[in-house]
Amino acid sequence: MNIVLLSGGSGKRLWPLSNDVRSKQFIKFFKTEDGQYESMLQRMYRGIRQVSEDACITVATSKTQLSEIKNQLGDNVGLSVEPARRDTFPAIALSVAYLHDIHHVGEEESVVICPVDPYVEEDYFKALLSLSERAKGSDANLCLLGMEPTYPSAKYGYIIPESSDEISNVVEFKEKPDEKTAEEYIKKGALWNGGVFAFRLGYMLKKAHELISFKDYDDLYAKYDEVTKISFDYAVAEKEDRIEVMRFHGIWKDLGTWNTLSESVPDPVMGKGIMDDVCKNVHIFNEMNVPILAMGLTDVVITASPEGILVSDKHHSSYIKPYVDDIVGQVMFAEKSWGSFRVLNVESESMTILVTLNPGHSMNYHAHDRRDEVWVVVEGTGETLVDGMRQEVNPGDVITMQAGCRHTVFAKTTLKIVEVQLGREISVDDKRKFEIE
Amino acid sequence: MNIVLLSGGSGKRLWPLSNDVRSKQFIKFFKTEDGQYESMLQRMYRGIRQVSEDACITVATSKTQLSEIKNQLGDNVGLSVEPARRDTFPAIALSVAYLHDIHHVGEEESVVICPVDPYVEEDYFKALLSLSERAKGSDANLCLLGMEPTYPSAKYGYIIPESSDEISNVVEFKEKPDEKTAEEYIKKGALWNGGVFAFRLGYMLKKAHELISFKDYDDLYAKYDEVTKISFDYAVAEKEDRIEVMRFHGIWKDLGTWNTLSESVPDPVMGKGIMDDVCKNVHIFNEMNVPILAMGLTDVVITASPEGILVSDKHHSSYIKPYVDDIVGQVMFAEKSWGSFRVLNVESESMTILVTLNPGHSMNYHAHDRRDEVWVVVEGTGETLVDGMRQEVNPGDVITMQAGCRHTVFAKTTLKIVEVQLGREISVDDKRKFEIE
Repeated sequence: MNIVLLSGGSGKRLWPLSNDVRSKQFIKFFKTEDGQYESMLQRMYRGIRQVSEDACITVATSKTQLSEIKNQLGDNVGLSVEPARRDTFPAIALSVAYLHDIHHVGEEESVVICPVDPYVEEDYFKALLSLSERAKGSDANLCLLGMEPTYPSAKYGYIIPESSDEISNVVEFKEKPDEKTAEEYIKKGALWNGGVFAFRLGYMLKKAHELISFKDYDDLYAKYDEVTKISFDYAVAEKEDRIEVMRFHGIWKDLGTWNTLSESVPDPVMGKGIMDDVCKNVHIFNEMNVPILAMGLTDVVITASPEGILVSDKHHSSYIKPYVDDIVGQVMFAEKSWGSFRVLNVESESMTILVTLNPGHSMNYHAHDRRDEVWVVVEGTGETLVDGMRQEVNPGDVITMQAGCRHTVFAKTTLKIVEVQLGREISVDDKRKFEIE
Repeated sequence: MNIVLLSGGSGKRLWPLSNDVRSKQFIKFFKTEDGQYESMLQRMYRGIRQVSEDACITVATSKTQLSEIKNQLGDNVGLSVEPARRDTFPAIALSVAYLHDIHHVGEEESVVICPVDPYVEEDYFKALLSLSERAKGSDANLCLLGMEPTYPSAKYGYIIPESSDEISNVVEFKEKPDEKTAEEYIKKGALWNGGVFAFRLGYMLKKAHELISFKDYDDLYAKYDEVTKISFDYAVAEKEDRIEVMRFHGIWKDLGTWNTLSESVPDPVMGKGIMDDVCKNVHIFNEMNVPILAMGLTDVVITASPEGILVSDKHHSSYIKPYVDDIVGQVMFAEKSWGSFRVLNVESESMTILVTLNPGHSMNYHAHDRRDEVWVVVEGTGETLVDGMRQEVNPGDVITMQAGCRHTVFAKTTLKIVEVQLGREISVDDKRKFEIE
């Protein structure tokens, strides 16, 4: 199976656990059987591997999410990285060109496209596999997965099928309706459009060449900035006559708000949290190192991270976005391809962060023009490279770096460093990268 | 006026803003006219100074609160420090001996005793002044302030007066009753016993010498550990025939729970906090640097500090104590006589803290046996003393100290230092103090 996972989103609705660099699919909400937590992305990846061990999995994403994806999935996935945002059709075209030119997927092979962020269970992955198989041999050019609606939602588009067969031709697509209209659609046997579909690679590549002038993947990547923005629905789905839909009866949920998310997380407490016996339908998601105590509450979600603290009635949690827009803040934590960082303290002319490097990884070799830095190694062993000088470092070692000084560190074991940044204009933009000498 | 403020309490009921080293009277809840926040202690002190500019104010307290009191009141108060806890009578005896021997208060002068933590307004301080005046010339040996009850509380002891006159003899004292009995007391004109009373110094000194064998303040202080525990009520009040009570009609409240406290704090948000329009009767007390967003809540208090986060229905907040007993934690922040500290990060073999020294102050000259330390100065100017070597320090300067190394720092301006502690057994007990060489 060739599968492209679409990973996007800005993540404001799940603030403070999501932020500008961490979309909801990266938050580790789900407890695995061995007691570890995993993210929606990791859950989706694991589910696909379980039904198709040798699946060719590609994540289509933007540059901003690259570090986080590498951090969570390692080097086990292909990455089709949009150099800019050009809407869904160019993104799919780019990933198809990527599969064709980089992974040498044949034109008769099928490709499944699916968003990374719905909450699903094992039957969903089996359905993806069936969809992939179907697309190879079907007369249709597009094979959709249609979700059996559980209520007349105004949040989704609808697919009107010709019959109630498991697989049927598609009569038409309907935009997000109001609830009353949704009820009528459902009476007619309509299905939710979850943006999951499959096709033969050759078909989509042809569509791509029809609509975008490019030679191959490298060429498309290079000129991606200039490609016209156009949605996949408008460019392909609405114009294609030969579309069929496969019914999916299992669990498929959009966990886009704290309310819907908490319904799908069985464990009411993630992280350090205590509730009294009076609490009813309360969820605590705590990414901070201090305990949360909840007393006498009903239908409340409490979430805390280094970005902030949310306490919300569950139903009201869906109205969060305008408030979060107003909380313009520094990014206080982030996972990077090499590990993670967390802001510990901010003063007017200094910032203290905890840097954690994963074993075998290092950050870029870089320098800052307008700040000095001090590293204090607090855990692990590694090797620093400072202005060309290599040095083994251990807990207690201190490295001071003036502005302009080139530096990086390579982690032999998990390496934790307290970094103190000093200067009048501390900014993430003040960074020049260098090749290692 | 000579006044002794009793400052005690462990502060679990207002967790996480109070902790083992910070009792509720030290939390800065109250906004002053100039927009600053002040604590109950500071509010009480300011109120007394307003009615009696040259009042001799003494705080009777224990060693653990000494740093915080000096931090909040500076050197403007006398301190009668109990070397150990020996119940209320020895504590009052010690403070009376302190006033007599150290401040040379005459035996005919009156002394007012009052707890530091009720919520009161201006008329209360005037009443204290009247009580002080009354005690000087009265026939009675004890003059109490009796609070007009506003409801049949089971939390207070009651004073039964002879008449409903503004000043009247006391018939008897009643222990905390149940609510029904309290109602009967109130019908008879009973008053709440708020533990506020005045006497002539000579009277109490005589009582002290009758019950405790000591020469003077220094002698009592030296043998304080061996003094028998006995309450003031048992030792004096219940045996004294000549007691009178002065009625107090104004506001006098015990702000012992988040519920009662939030009723007396007009501003619903302290620190960084945002509420939606749906929130009703919600209070946010936030001592962290990140914002709290509250949505769709009713009758809820949210408090956050580096110790933890509490989200509680206001009425349930009075049941907090057993939960806090279970949260056995490191003290994550504290005000000291020289400034304050805040824990930024804890790892298995390191701890990072932010130390803030007030201008002109320095910590003790000290050494640790089982940890190394690194200081990174992030703000201000000062002078370090490390193993006898003095050195001026400025932002960006790094000082490394091996275990055993003696060190301190003197702040010329407000001085902020990121301190990284490194070792397998990091403990507050690992500290030896030295005289400066």
